[in-house]
Amino acid sequence: MGNIKRVAVLGSTGSIGRQTLEVINAFPHHFRIIGLAAGKNLDLLAEQVNQFKPRFVHLQDKSQTRLTNAEYEFLSLEEMASHPEIDIVVMATSGKWGLHPTLAAVKAGKRLALANKESLVMAGEIIVSEAKRNGAQIIPIDSEHSAIWQCLKGETQKPTQIILTASGGPFYHYSQAKLNKVTAEQALKHPSWRMGRKVTIDSATLMNKGLEVIEAHWLFDIPFDNINVLIHPQSIVHSMVEFSDGSVKAQLSYPDMRLPIQYALSYPERLPNPQLPRLNWETSKDLSFEPPDLDTFPCLKLAIEAGRRGGTYPAVLCGADEVAVELFLSGRIKFTDIARLITPALEAHQATSHPTVEEILAADSWAREKVMPLVSGDNR
Amino acid sequence: MGNIKRVAVLGSTGSIGRQTLEVINAFPHHFRIIGLAAGKNLDLLAEQVNQFKPRFVHLQDKSQTRLTNAEYEFLSLEEMASHPEIDIVVMATSGKWGLHPTLAAVKAGKRLALANKESLVMAGEIIVSEAKRNGAQIIPIDSEHSAIWQCLKGETQKPTQIILTASGGPFYHYSQAKLNKVTAEQALKHPSWRMGRKVTIDSATLMNKGLEVIEAHWLFDIPFDNINVLIHPQSIVHSMVEFSDGSVKAQLSYPDMRLPIQYALSYPERLPNPQLPRLNWETSKDLSFEPPDLDTFPCLKLAIEAGRRGGTYPAVLCGADEVAVELFLSGRIKFTDIARLITPALEAHQATSHPTVEEILAADSWAREKVMPLVSGDNR
Repeated sequence: MGNIKRVAVLGSTGSIGRQTLEVINAFPHHFRIIGLAAGKNLDLLAEQVNQFKPRFVHLQDKSQTRLTNAEYEFLSLEEMASHPEIDIVVMATSGKWGLHPTLAAVKAGKRLALANKESLVMAGEIIVSEAKRNGAQIIPIDSEHSAIWQCLKGETQKPTQIILTASGGPFYHYSQAKLNKVTAEQALKHPSWRMGRKVTIDSATLMNKGLEVIEAHWLFDIPFDNINVLIHPQSIVHSMVEFSDGSVKAQLSYPDMRLPIQYALSYPERLPNPQLPRLNWETSKDLSFEPPDLDTFPCLKLAIEAGRRGGTYPAVLCGADEVAVELFLSGRIKFTDIARLITPALEAHQATSHPTVEEILAADSWAREKVMPLVSGDNR
Repeated sequence: MGNIKRVAVLGSTGSIGRQTLEVINAFPHHFRIIGLAAGKNLDLLAEQVNQFKPRFVHLQDKSQTRLTNAEYEFLSLEEMASHPEIDIVVMATSGKWGLHPTLAAVKAGKRLALANKESLVMAGEIIVSEAKRNGAQIIPIDSEHSAIWQCLKGETQKPTQIILTASGGPFYHYSQAKLNKVTAEQALKHPSWRMGRKVTIDSATLMNKGLEVIEAHWLFDIPFDNINVLIHPQSIVHSMVEFSDGSVKAQLSYPDMRLPIQYALSYPERLPNPQLPRLNWETSKDLSFEPPDLDTFPCLKLAIEAGRRGGTYPAVLCGADEVAVELFLSGRIKFTDIARLITPALEAHQATSHPTVEEILAADSWAREKVMPLVSGDNR
C-alpha cells in the first residue's frame, strides 16, 4: 500500500463505525478519514470530527448540531459515498438506510467495505450488477463473509460449498417452552459478540444467520443449495469453504470485529496489528460443530426460503423482522412470536421479481404495515 | 491446465506412489505417466508398466526383471528426475535414497511433488537454494505441508506462525510406564492414516512431526520459533497458518493422501474429483487441540533441536532414528528406547555446518554405526 487510502465511514458512531476508527487510528500511514457520517449520536460525532478532522461530514439533522466549523463540508450520504476524493467507503449504518448510499458507492466504482446487511439482502441483485458494471469492489465486513473472502483469496475456481458458522446465540439448546419465556434482557446478552440491539436479537433467533446466507448468495454468486449453516458455539471458526477436490479452508480468530474491518481496508495486504488478539493454543481447545435446529429456530428457515424466492421477498422479511424485533424489545411480544409475525407477512406478499429500489422499499413498508395490526389485534 | 502434464513417479509401488497413480488414472486429460521407478516390488511395477505404458522405467536391480519390452527405456533415478520430457516429478520414495533424485529434479527446474521427507530434512538448505536458482517449484505432498501451502495461496506476506497438527498417534495419552510395554504390532495401528511401517512408528513417537517441523522450516522459510505443533486427534485440520493481523487459516478434510497428491499435481488449479471424500457435517463434529507433551514424547523435542542446530545434525537424527525404528520393529528394543538411542548419537556428533551432500550422507552413516553398538552392548 504505497499511498494513503482516503476513507469515508458512514455510520461512524455505531459499533462497527467506532471500531473502524480505532483501526484507522492505528495506521495513520495507510488510511486517512476524509468523511464521517452519523445519525443521532451528535456528541460522539463531534468528538470524532475533532479527532480525525474530516473534510466531509454528514448529519441526519444539521439543525441540531454544534458542528459549525467551516473546515468541513456537509454532504448527503449519497454524495459522500460517491465523492471522487474518497477511495474506500465503509458502510457501517444498519437497516435499509444503507441501501441508497451503498448503491451510490458501487455506481461510483468505489471499494465498498460493507457491514450493512440489509442492502445486500434486500437489493443484492441490483448492487452486485451495478458493482460489476462500474468496477466497484465489495469487501464484506461481517466476520463470516470476511472469513469466506479470506479463504477464497488466491483460489481460481468457485467453491462447491460455503459453510457459514453461527454461535447459535444465548438460547441454542433451549426447548420451545423455555424459549417462550425468554426476556429481551436475556436475549441482549450474546455469548461471544458485542453488537447493536437489533443484530443481537437477530443472532438469538438465527434470523441474522439467514440474512447472512442471502448475503453470501449475492457476494459470492453461490446457489442457495451450496450454502450451509453450522452451529459452532465457540465462535472461533468464522466460516468455511469447500472446493471441488473436497478440500475445505476455514478462517479462525477470536471474535473481534476489528480484524474483518482491517482486512476490508487493507486487502489484498494484511497489516501487522498488535492490538488484535492472537489465538492462544497453549491451553487445549475444543471446537464443535452441529447442524442447526430449524424447527426450534424457524427464522433461519424463513430467511433462506425468502432468499430462494428472491424478488421482493427478502425486503418483506427484513421489514417484518425489524418490526417484530422492536415489539419484542419493548416487551409487547414473546421471543417465539418473532417468527410467528414474519410468516404471515411472507405468505400474504405478492412479490415482484427483479424489483427496482423503489419496489424493494415499498415491499419493506408494506411488510411493516402488515405486521403491526397482527399485534394490536393480538390475533397470533 | 491446457496441455497434458507429463509425470514421473519415483517410488511408484509404495503407498504414496500407488495413490499417485490412482489420481492420475482419474484425470487422463490432465496427466500422463511418462516414467515409473520402483525398488523391490517388481510384480506391482510390471502391472503398473502394463497399465500406464511409460516411456521410462527404473528398477533397482534390472537383472531380476521380466520387464524387457523394447517400448520403454531404462533410466537411473537421477536421469528420470531431470529428463527434459518430464514436467512433474513425484518423489514418493522414502529414506535417504530420495536425496540424489530430488536434487536432480530441482537442478533441472522441474515441478517437484515431494513426499520424501528425508531429502528436505537432511539437505533442506541445498535443495531449497538449488530450487530457487533453477526455478524449480517444490510442492509438498505431506498432508500438513500441503495444508500450509493451500492456506498460503494468494497471500502476499509471510505467515507469523505455522501450526502443524499431529494426530498424536495411537499412544498419545499413555504414561511412560505404559509406553515401555508397547509392541511393534500396536504401534503399527495408526488411528487415522494408513502409511508405511517406518513413518507409522515415527508418527507414534512424534518423530515424524519433528521431521515435519524441519521440512516446514525449509519449505516456507520460517524460523523454528514460529513453527508450533498441536495435537489434534481427529486428523481433520491438517495444519494452520497465522498472519500478521492475527487471522488464522486452516485446511480441513478427511485423512486421505490422494487430496494433497492431487493438489501437488493440479496446482494452481483444483480438479473436481468425486472419488475424494467430502467432510460430512450432518452429524456433529468435535475438533480438539492441545499442546504436545514433550516429556513423554522426547523425539519431537530431539528433532526440533536437531533442526535448530542445523548442519549435519538432522542427518544424524534421520540415520539414528531409522536404525532405532528397525530395532524396535524387530523386537530388539522397547518403544521408549527409540529416543534413548538417538540422544547419544546427537550428543556425540561433531557437526559440519553448510555441509555438502556427501558430508550429509556420511553423517547419516556415522549415526547408524553409532547406534548399533549401543544396542549390542545393551548399555542403554
